[in-house]
Amino acid sequence: MAAHDQSNGDSKLANGETTYFATNPRPASLDEHISSLTPFIADHVRKHNRVALVTSGGTTVPLENQTVRFIDNFSAGTRGATSAEYFLENGYAVIFLHRQFSLLPYSRHFSHSTNCFLDYMTTSSTGEVVIDDEYQAQMASVLQKYERAKREKMLLLLPFTSVNEYLWHLREIAMLMRPLGADGLFYLAAAVSDFFIPANRMVEHKIQSSEDFAHANHGSSLGIGEERAPAAHMDGAKLVIDLDPVPKFLKQLVDVWSPKSMIVSFKLETDPSILAEKSRYALKKYSHDLVIGNMLNTRKYEVLFVSAAGGDQWIRVPSSRRSKSVTAATMGEVRQSTEMPLEIESLIVPEVARLHSEIISNGRSR
Amino acid sequence: MAAHDQSNGDSKLANGETTYFATNPRPASLDEHISSLTPFIADHVRKHNRVALVTSGGTTVPLENQTVRFIDNFSAGTRGATSAEYFLENGYAVIFLHRQFSLLPYSRHFSHSTNCFLDYMTTSSTGEVVIDDEYQAQMASVLQKYERAKREKMLLLLPFTSVNEYLWHLREIAMLMRPLGADGLFYLAAAVSDFFIPANRMVEHKIQSSEDFAHANHGSSLGIGEERAPAAHMDGAKLVIDLDPVPKFLKQLVDVWSPKSMIVSFKLETDPSILAEKSRYALKKYSHDLVIGNMLNTRKYEVLFVSAAGGDQWIRVPSSRRSKSVTAATMGEVRQSTEMPLEIESLIVPEVARLHSEIISNGRSR
Repeated sequence: MAAHDQSNGDSKLANGETTYFATNPRPASLDEHISSLTPFIADHVRKHNRVALVTSGGTTVPLENQTVRFIDNFSAGTRGATSAEYFLENGYAVIFLHRQFSLLPYSRHFSHSTNCFLDYMTTSSTGEVVIDDEYQAQMASVLQKYERAKREKMLLLLPFTSVNEYLWHLREIAMLMRPLGADGLFYLAAAVSDFFIPANRMVEHKIQSSEDFAHANHGSSLGIGEERAPAAHMDGAKLVIDLDPVPKFLKQLVDVWSPKSMIVSFKLETDPSILAEKSRYALKKYSHDLVIGNMLNTRKYEVLFVSAAGGDQWIRVPSSRRSKSVTAATMGEVRQSTEMPLEIESLIVPEVARLHSEIISNGRSR
Repeated sequence: MAAHDQSNGDSKLANGETTYFATNPRPASLDEHISSLTPFIADHVRKHNRVALVTSGGTTVPLENQTVRFIDNFSAGTRGATSAEYFLENGYAVIFLHRQFSLLPYSRHFSHSTNCFLDYMTTSSTGEVVIDDEYQAQMASVLQKYERAKREKMLLLLPFTSVNEYLWHLREIAMLMRPLGADGLFYLAAAVSDFFIPANRMVEHKIQSSEDFAHANHGSSLGIGEERAPAAHMDGAKLVIDLDPVPKFLKQLVDVWSPKSMIVSFKLETDPSILAEKSRYALKKYSHDLVIGNMLNTRKYEVLFVSAAGGDQWIRVPSSRRSKSVTAATMGEVRQSTEMPLEIESLIVPEVARLHSEIISNGRSR
């Protein structure tokens, strides 16, 4: 369907892309990341492995070039980091494109908890720093899986911070993954901003509160001489920010950058009355393979799969196996109970892999 | 000076405070934190210890009640977490009021690095998870200090996320610290937003991108029926946000909440031409004890002390002892070199403690 659809919407998107990458700076980290990606992907092409790009965490939208303030999207990275582990268990190699300092596969079991890192440790009788007995069993099991993924070169961790870094990486990685053909999978769990400040509307210096300082916001700070009006300005004592829409890159990904891969996007909402409709709307608009809809409050135990092949399908953790918190869920791994908590990603990922197998065998329905 | 200064500015501030706490909700975590703070402070009052409240990390300004997006202030928490360690070394008890998941004293040496947590670990010949030999010496030394601070009840860790949580905590802790008299110290290193969205201007649900969905932003999402105009709205394809100024709580802290404590604020700028002037302006406006000015790009090796007692004074790490990164600086602790990197907080904190001693002995100059 996408190939036939040369409406105004599409040509606007294509123009948007051209303008975007011509006017927003290529991130400094990209070349170094390409030099890790190239052999990683080549290795898995040779081995005929499936490769999942898992994106994770929120993107920042800096308000100043010398960034003091930014807009962010809520995401600890739990969905992405947890899913990455299950993709590895399902035989996928994983490129984990994540917000810097968000949760990582495996280490997530011990970070971002109320415990400080050092609370897991103690000094042994021989004076060595060791993991406390209470955590030994769980940590040994997690460490083993992590070391195996590293040893077998199945996991590549790449950090980003801003939405601009994210978009440049997504485009580059998609093009590098083309040799994988249908074995490539995009699992776009990152919480990507819908709005941003283009480089030519960004002020250089920290925006000054006018209450605080009479000489605030002299010419250079407010970007006078820039091509377009700055995106942030003071209106009396108020700070007013106006943000441009981020071009719809999912369309480019599906149609141009990586037409043969399986592509899965996420839709996060807070209002339950619009979740299904918005998920279906996204699938129709972008003609990709699967939208996983989820609600902010229930995302840890239910999600809605919307696909052209399978229609709408809720995936839910049975209520007896829902955990109160992530910590409780991960500690559950070593608990020998018939009712041990289940992570919803352990249900999501095999179902995605099954749909991926169908696409590989039968070709896609889009 | 503050006592005489009953200008319009001050009465507005007092009104601002009354309005603020009457109209912005008390955070759920506060009662639990008070129950930790009360015995902690009482213990140190009894022992005549000095107590530093160290604030650390950025504050969030949520754009929706069910928060998907928020504005944040850049801060990993390095200044606060590092300073807290040096306050402990200088005999202070420390209340560490920090942004959740920002750097913590001691564990900071091993978190937020490019290493994953698990990269520090290995499996011993007997099958136990232990810290790799390469990191043993440093980790043993850090763990020892951390365990001592815990054992002697010198360190209390309290997390916040939003600017509203921060402000409620600051007021409450200041009032709880009054029995400390001049032995109390406020070291306000957190990057607190100058702008916020009052509770009665916040929309309930995720703001919808109008490009994405024709039915976006129906009445309930845009807060129709709220008392005041919502702070975020769509203008065509653009998102426009207007933020109110945060009332100037430093004035309240100095004059009302904690008049006997030593109070240190920070000023972060990106434009070097205004740093000294803005720091002096803040000292004059709030009549507190010390402003520590710093630039985004050079904050790891130089700061400007501005105080009524001592005038302006630059504190700098000699160039031969500046490290390229935080990681290099912390690894330096175990390096036996005559030119090992120096953390600037090891110079800042003893100087603050010296000024604090002067205030305790001689009374204050303000």
